[in-house]
Amino acid sequence: MAIEASNETGGHRRIRLGMVGGGQGAFIGAVHRIAARIDDQFELVAGALASDPVRAKTSAKELGIADGRAYGSFEEMARAEAARADGIEAVSIVTPNHLHSPVAKAFLEAGIHVICDKPLTTTVAEAEELVALVRKTGRIFVVTHNYTGYPMIRQARAMVANGDLGEIRLVKAEYLQDWLTEPLETTGQKQAAWRTDPSRSGAGGCIGDIGTHAYNLACFVSGLELDELLAQLSTFVEGRRLDDDVQILLKWKGGAKGMLWASQVAVGNENGLTLRVYGSKGGLEWAQENPNHLWFTPYGKPRQLLTRGGAGASGEAGRITRIPSGHPEGYLEGFATIYAEAARAIRAAAAGEKPHPDVVFPTVEDGLAGVKLIDAAVKSSAGNGVWVRMT
Amino acid sequence: MAIEASNETGGHRRIRLGMVGGGQGAFIGAVHRIAARIDDQFELVAGALASDPVRAKTSAKELGIADGRAYGSFEEMARAEAARADGIEAVSIVTPNHLHSPVAKAFLEAGIHVICDKPLTTTVAEAEELVALVRKTGRIFVVTHNYTGYPMIRQARAMVANGDLGEIRLVKAEYLQDWLTEPLETTGQKQAAWRTDPSRSGAGGCIGDIGTHAYNLACFVSGLELDELLAQLSTFVEGRRLDDDVQILLKWKGGAKGMLWASQVAVGNENGLTLRVYGSKGGLEWAQENPNHLWFTPYGKPRQLLTRGGAGASGEAGRITRIPSGHPEGYLEGFATIYAEAARAIRAAAAGEKPHPDVVFPTVEDGLAGVKLIDAAVKSSAGNGVWVRMT
Amino acid sequence: MAIEASNETGGHRRIRLGMVGGGQGAFIGAVHRIAARIDDQFELVAGALASDPVRAKTSAKELGIADGRAYGSFEEMARAEAARADGIEAVSIVTPNHLHSPVAKAFLEAGIHVICDKPLTTTVAEAEELVALVRKTGRIFVVTHNYTGYPMIRQARAMVANGDLGEIRLVKAEYLQDWLTEPLETTGQKQAAWRTDPSRSGAGGCIGDIGTHAYNLACFVSGLELDELLAQLSTFVEGRRLDDDVQILLKWKGGAKGMLWASQVAVGNENGLTLRVYGSKGGLEWAQENPNHLWFTPYGKPRQLLTRGGAGASGEAGRITRIPSGHPEGYLEGFATIYAEAARAIRAAAAGEKPHPDVVFPTVEDGLAGVKLIDAAVKSSAGNGVWVRMT
Amino acid sequence: MAIEASNETGGHRRIRLGMVGGGQGAFIGAVHRIAARIDDQFELVAGALASDPVRAKTSAKELGIADGRAYGSFEEMARAEAARADGIEAVSIVTPNHLHSPVAKAFLEAGIHVICDKPLTTTVAEAEELVALVRKTGRIFVVTHNYTGYPMIRQARAMVANGDLGEIRLVKAEYLQDWLTEPLETTGQKQAAWRTDPSRSGAGGCIGDIGTHAYNLACFVSGLELDELLAQLSTFVEGRRLDDDVQILLKWKGGAKGMLWASQVAVGNENGLTLRVYGSKGGLEWAQENPNHLWFTPYGKPRQLLTRGGAGASGEAGRITRIPSGHPEGYLEGFATIYAEAARAIRAAAAGEKPHPDVVFPTVEDGLAGVKLIDAAVKSSAGNGVWVRMT
Repeated sequence: MAIEASNETGGHRRIRLGMVGGGQGAFIGAVHRIAARIDDQFELVAGALASDPVRAKTSAKELGIADGRAYGSFEEMARAEAARADGIEAVSIVTPNHLHSPVAKAFLEAGIHVICDKPLTTTVAEAEELVALVRKTGRIFVVTHNYTGYPMIRQARAMVANGDLGEIRLVKAEYLQDWLTEPLETTGQKQAAWRTDPSRSGAGGCIGDIGTHAYNLACFVSGLELDELLAQLSTFVEGRRLDDDVQILLKWKGGAKGMLWASQVAVGNENGLTLRVYGSKGGLEWAQENPNHLWFTPYGKPRQLLTRGGAGASGEAGRITRIPSGHPEGYLEGFATIYAEAARAIRAAAAGEKPHPDVVFPTVEDGLAGVKLIDAAVKSSAGNGVWVRMT
Repeated sequence: MAIEASNETGGHRRIRLGMVGGGQGAFIGAVHRIAARIDDQFELVAGALASDPVRAKTSAKELGIADGRAYGSFEEMARAEAARADGIEAVSIVTPNHLHSPVAKAFLEAGIHVICDKPLTTTVAEAEELVALVRKTGRIFVVTHNYTGYPMIRQARAMVANGDLGEIRLVKAEYLQDWLTEPLETTGQKQAAWRTDPSRSGAGGCIGDIGTHAYNLACFVSGLELDELLAQLSTFVEGRRLDDDVQILLKWKGGAKGMLWASQVAVGNENGLTLRVYGSKGGLEWAQENPNHLWFTPYGKPRQLLTRGGAGASGEAGRITRIPSGHPEGYLEGFATIYAEAARAIRAAAAGEKPHPDVVFPTVEDGLAGVKLIDAAVKSSAGNGVWVRMT
Repeated sequence: MAIEASNETGGHRRIRLGMVGGGQGAFIGAVHRIAARIDDQFELVAGALASDPVRAKTSAKELGIADGRAYGSFEEMARAEAARADGIEAVSIVTPNHLHSPVAKAFLEAGIHVICDKPLTTTVAEAEELVALVRKTGRIFVVTHNYTGYPMIRQARAMVANGDLGEIRLVKAEYLQDWLTEPLETTGQKQAAWRTDPSRSGAGGCIGDIGTHAYNLACFVSGLELDELLAQLSTFVEGRRLDDDVQILLKWKGGAKGMLWASQVAVGNENGLTLRVYGSKGGLEWAQENPNHLWFTPYGKPRQLLTRGGAGASGEAGRITRIPSGHPEGYLEGFATIYAEAARAIRAAAAGEKPHPDVVFPTVEDGLAGVKLIDAAVKSSAGNGVWVRMT
Repeated sequence: MAIEASNETGGHRRIRLGMVGGGQGAFIGAVHRIAARIDDQFELVAGALASDPVRAKTSAKELGIADGRAYGSFEEMARAEAARADGIEAVSIVTPNHLHSPVAKAFLEAGIHVICDKPLTTTVAEAEELVALVRKTGRIFVVTHNYTGYPMIRQARAMVANGDLGEIRLVKAEYLQDWLTEPLETTGQKQAAWRTDPSRSGAGGCIGDIGTHAYNLACFVSGLELDELLAQLSTFVEGRRLDDDVQILLKWKGGAKGMLWASQVAVGNENGLTLRVYGSKGGLEWAQENPNHLWFTPYGKPRQLLTRGGAGASGEAGRITRIPSGHPEGYLEGFATIYAEAARAIRAAAAGEKPHPDVVFPTVEDGLAGVKLIDAAVKSSAGNGVWVRMT
């Protein structure tokens, strides 16, 4: 086994972390906590884990958060933690979408770094406000577009940047699930309920929940900026209040074309996020369900299977790889890399420095881009499928 | 080995076949000839194999066609063969696209059945004229959308028709190749030359050459009719005269949505024709490069791998299966099934009967649908990506 | 499409072929006939298609064999055809195993070339007798170890011979099926009945039916000769008279090691023939169910997916490839290549020449090697798993 | 996302953990630490991390272990920790193999639970002594055959136990790597150096390092006990002092047969651990490199792809699943489950209870079985491949 596990603290003090949302019955909160633990860079010491104060307390107790730091509201938490000498340095926001903006503002204004789930906000205006606030406060702001934490995605990005594909012609992202094939939101299933509720999710259903991930990934790897889109949003399940399928034609600046397809009713697909990028000299293909593999074809040569930690792995992949090739790293490790990168940035900020140039994470600007995608797609579709220019 | 090989003549006299096109240096002609031989239903006895008379003669000699039946032009061949007592009963047309229409007309008017490569013609008007002529002459007309000859495609179609997927919501077809990534047509490569030449291919490049196959397959399996489309055609290779990539949004009658993507510059893809169909109760996925497999997921149950000749194979697949499961049948066998179905239809016609209802092949109307697709896609794209209604 | 279809006659007269066995209800006979037709090198003109004379006649009629050349016995056929000016030049033997030897002898002695199914005979003595007779008569003798007809198998063989893998260390062949998981032979299923009957199959069940294929493939690709083996033969289905699973340790001459596993009770496997070869510099992996793919890993470099007709395909693969990459060729095409190679050898013999050195087919000596494998495996297993030296 | 993340502490105090081995330059120590953190059941508070005292101190500092609890030797650590009121409750042993036995004895005798890497010891006598000592002390002893921590492996085991496969006939395990294809141990690579050194690894090289994992997995899933084996161990790399490839025929008690193949010179394989189990009614196939998938074929029905967290997942898989289907869990999560199960057992022991019957982990007896496998394989091979009975 040639590659050493890495990414542990190396003697650093762990960063004090708080969490808003993520109490009992939540999904993504536990994911964030595992991700924060894997590389041992954070310790969870405070939380406003649920809107219901009783559930908030019980959840905190279960997680070993001291009584005095289990808060009933995020406002109280921001205030109290900012006032403590040993207050949290960063907060993870894992609430439904509509709360991202007020919670993030509260903590940014309290001088606390933010790690926020996606989509960033439910409106473009809120997102732009956050961008401005981040610039003003100088706090680190990380949006957990976690798929950018996969080593082979980092490698793909590096290969494109390096010109291995030549001039990029086609960028195609898909994100297919099937868990909303039936009206699950009417059964009391909590995840389905808020994700299909415009008051908590915003104007986008599938486009917001997973379309933004696919879009972020396409931009992250290709390095391209979107020029125009044309979308057809569909709601296949009767009575559903938001889209459950979205198909988008893309025109990238510089002449590349592409498509984005996200669906939550594609029966037989679990978490089928895939990315394909084709250029004048080569092609790349990647699928999230086996994230340790990346297919690369240099034009006119055989296809190559590049593997995390394997013979063709790049430095960019290697830097965030923990275990040898063939020992699969998965979703939680990719997510953990977002936290590890956040830790590096937060430590640099504490030292009054910029993060090392190798450190990469999805920023508040990337979050804004996702909200703009939702906005444009909804507009295009409302106009019965017209081209909308991204300004 | 439980399944017997089938599809041999069973004592029938072989049908006398002629061929137009397909001489030395051609690709698809040899495919048609192998396809015609596999099930032993045809014997090739006449040909106008090349536009150049010398090459026509030499090619005929190589194929064992008697001297007197190696013609210098298709007009002469139609006339002469119609006049013989032992004249050909059917003709295969394997020329570049622009000749399909005049050749087909000549043989139909001579009372000879036609097996014609796709796309049917280079204009909608020609295609409509052929439809009318077929109806008038009563001749069998088969368009070699050969992918409909794969057993698992027949099974997919039967499953959709049977309601195994519930109400169809999404139909997605892709056909990705990479052989035109560079300007191959400038190197003297014959296949690339005519396929990128509007005077021989018509108004569609990639959309005509392979987009029509993907569209035919989507319609064949889903049983749906297209209502509207919106296309972006691209030409990525400088100097190329026709599109080499096409991305289309689809609205099917009845409310289903979909996309069609065909490309000849998607580096790393050889002949990547895939079809995905999702309904309210189940999903199907199929990929041409391993055509013996069909993925089926009944909603809420594990994915199943259905195989040609395997445990879950249907009667529709079994009827056209030659060898046991696990012994792969490929492209030539699928193509041969088109010929075998043509033979059945031709024999029925000779007996003054309709073909058995199980006999299925792509008709002149299917060919017309393909030409309309090209026409609509070109119009949509020329209008900078507007919705075009299929009338 | 860059690669032209090939392998047609090119003006040659078709070789007159007879068939023994392969009447109604048989499996492999129809496979041989399709294989003989695909490249148009043979015409079937005579047959003794069944042991039952009535079935023999009916079967012949169905195949368009003239009445006078539908024989009731192979002895009569050999005699009569040898006496005709237009008698058959070659015979295909597709009977159960115990008849291979007498039929082959009859035709060899009549001066007729032989294409014989595997395993060659039911005893080593018979096989050695055939080897001697072939040498004496100078006739072409082809054993249809059809998997050697796959292009990527030819490529694998060439790569090993070329040193691309360095010194060979490990050769592993598997052939897994599941069709005999239950006592199918007791249900009247004809294929199962004779394959599990020692009087018709010989001493080997699974080892003879499919183990010999796997062994032939291992030898063909690796170029190695077996030194010693140790086998455990098992019969898992109660009442079955021959083995239905065999596991063999192999010691190859020169120091390489390996294993052979063949099973007809491995539930979930259809026709799972796979080959893996590892050397000091590289590794190859191949699986019959997708025969157009070959995995190659040069040590310390990424895995490469070599495809039939694709960028990494060798001349050896290209020579026997009919259609472009991505258009799958399957079992019947591989089988057809055996017939095409036989045709080349027979034509050379007719011209008093040796076949072109590129022409490759499994010989009577390869057939003998298979029978020796069965013999040694049965002996080893009868001795409760002892090493047996191949002399 | 229907499935909630689980496996967090739920309010439990974290178990105090020590570690022996695992300092700078080690591989598996870091893996154990991440595994211990993922579910938050342990805190690492003491260590004797390296044989070199300086490296031991530095390594401890890097991991945030307090100065006073960074020990220079395991003997000192066992003594000191046992004497503290807040001493460690459990120790992880991640040294080279030859130290497992003395370290484990020291901690068991100090009343401390043990989590020990595999193989358990370098001799059968030592392993038996440990078994006796565990029984005497009543301490929890976990051997990190981590692959038993994969959810789909738990499911496979449950399906076999439940009779879904009928009577088991065949059990086949493979573990293929290629990292020792060349003499890496001569380059100073630390992992290769001790693994090929009999004084640190014991009598088995490849058989000990990875063969024991494959064997443990085969036993764990099948529930079978080995009756006899016959092995051929090979050393392909010149100068290497231990085997780098092992091929074993297996006879299981009750009549099932099988094979085990482990190799560290199979070029193109990274960490190719696979398991196949076939019974009279069904078959299972699993591959470690995509551990979230399990293929199940009920005889006579289509193959099913069972996925972690998916529609066909069992309770046994669900209990140890953290995130929804399609979000891959990997090697570290499987390893973490061993730690989570250890935590449950340790907590039960602290309460004077037996672990809940659902709690499953590889025991000291399983460790002994692995050492016996090595011993028997080495004996069989030394006898030139003879059957050795497991007593």
